[in-house]
Amino acid sequence: MTTVTFAARFEKARARFGPLAWGIDPSLEMLGRWGMTDTPDGLDRFADIALEAASGTIGIVKLQSAFFERHGWRGFRTLQRLVADARGSGLLVIVDAKRGDVGTTNDAYAQAFLGPDAPLGADALTVHPYLGLEAMDAFVDRAFRSGSCLLVVTRSSNPEGRPIQSARLSSGPWADASLSVEAALLAGIGALNARLTPGAIGPVGAVIGPTHIAPSLDLRAPSCLYLAPGVGAQGATPRDVAEVFADCPDRVIPSASRSLLQAGPDRHRLRDAICALAAEFAGLLVPPA
Amino acid sequence: MTTVTFAARFEKARARFGPLAWGIDPSLEMLGRWGMTDTPDGLDRFADIALEAASGTIGIVKLQSAFFERHGWRGFRTLQRLVADARGSGLLVIVDAKRGDVGTTNDAYAQAFLGPDAPLGADALTVHPYLGLEAMDAFVDRAFRSGSCLLVVTRSSNPEGRPIQSARLSSGPWADASLSVEAALLAGIGALNARLTPGAIGPVGAVIGPTHIAPSLDLRAPSCLYLAPGVGAQGATPRDVAEVFADCPDRVIPSASRSLLQAGPDRHRLRDAICALAAEFAGLLVPPA
Repeated sequence: MTTVTFAARFEKARARFGPLAWGIDPSLEMLGRWGMTDTPDGLDRFADIALEAASGTIGIVKLQSAFFERHGWRGFRTLQRLVADARGSGLLVIVDAKRGDVGTTNDAYAQAFLGPDAPLGADALTVHPYLGLEAMDAFVDRAFRSGSCLLVVTRSSNPEGRPIQSARLSSGPWADASLSVEAALLAGIGALNARLTPGAIGPVGAVIGPTHIAPSLDLRAPSCLYLAPGVGAQGATPRDVAEVFADCPDRVIPSASRSLLQAGPDRHRLRDAICALAAEFAGLLVPPA
Repeated sequence: MTTVTFAARFEKARARFGPLAWGIDPSLEMLGRWGMTDTPDGLDRFADIALEAASGTIGIVKLQSAFFERHGWRGFRTLQRLVADARGSGLLVIVDAKRGDVGTTNDAYAQAFLGPDAPLGADALTVHPYLGLEAMDAFVDRAFRSGSCLLVVTRSSNPEGRPIQSARLSSGPWADASLSVEAALLAGIGALNARLTPGAIGPVGAVIGPTHIAPSLDLRAPSCLYLAPGVGAQGATPRDVAEVFADCPDRVIPSASRSLLQAGPDRHRLRDAICALAAEFAGLLVPPA
């Protein structure tokens, strides 16, 4: 395989810009704050300004699909264009779509979002595991073959996710150890990566909300990257991120959306806010010497 | 509230056509079988033929978003058009998109898929609960206000979903009873409907795959509708559906996709296949006298 892996591209972006991903979330509220109309045209202008501010300022952007889908197919067209334009300008693009279904349907989603022939071909895609990690072969295969990354929502940043994510398994390969759902997912992700890319960071990563410090999870063992959403507006501080990921500081991609978007639409203020937070993370998320 | 509820519209459709939903899934395989190109144009032709066959033949269609998203924004445009055209011709439309996120993001998804002002405003939408049923207020509110239905994936039809869905809660309101994730979701759905529409079928339903007979779930208690996917190609027979939903036969919407689509693209053969399966279900899913 000669494809450059997502992990290698992330490492390069991280060395230059720090590990931060900027969440470009054109919510109704943020369109209003930026003085845009709540229309596909307003969305397009928002996307143009955000891309201009991001290029050369940061290494990674995260696009929340919901805020584009709000505008129907025209919004989806903006998302598709933004994915392509952002990648074209050298940014790594995470599409936060939280897709997930049974196997054959996952194959169709993978064809939409991963790989060079995918219309919304991103560097990484978030997926939800409610129908099982083992149903995700099509996602995993495509991510592996195309050097992209699958980010499995494992522990979400919101409090309402705790009951399901902390439930204890009573069937399946991890039931004997009575693991929690989130711990079993991490074990499963680790096993997948160990098989696909032994000794290296694999194509399957996990989304871990840094708003929950406890119960602690074994984040060192799975050879994977982590997306840590919810910095700022959702309550987690950069220090929380450093604490949660103390065992693997060089494998985490923190993302911040609203707290940065509030500096817009002025490009200079946006760039300043992004650079300040990126520098803070670069200083905090330092691998042990 | 003067809006006619989804439950009332389903009851009307059921009385005329039976409870079956036809799953219109233009997968790569099915586009080929129907002699269509694997392009947005092929997808459009597929949608036109399916709509022509469905109108006046059946009461409900289910559209799997993944097979439209495969074609990028043009596919999403076809989905949006098909939702509108199908509703315009009197069909009830379930969009099977399995969306789900944190609260503010769910609000954006709800604005995309539910209500008269939504670009893809459907009669019902499937959502996944991995980030918590309690994070779905925006979905629930919109479904309630607009007389549409939220279908929460509770027990999926595939085997890979069992470990998470059967895990035992150790925190949250249902942990004391040590309920499984799927049983706790049903209890939560029941509580939501009891609050919103006391004594009547509420706006929050559940997706229950009829391929799993055991362990049994209390399907009688929550005043909700059920979507039962996976009839035919995924292995469940109409008799399986009747067995799983024996306690609430008049509240289940079975759906079949591939097994019916195989009769296409000939409209007559499609209509015959749909009518035969719809009649079989109408005979099997009979409420107790």
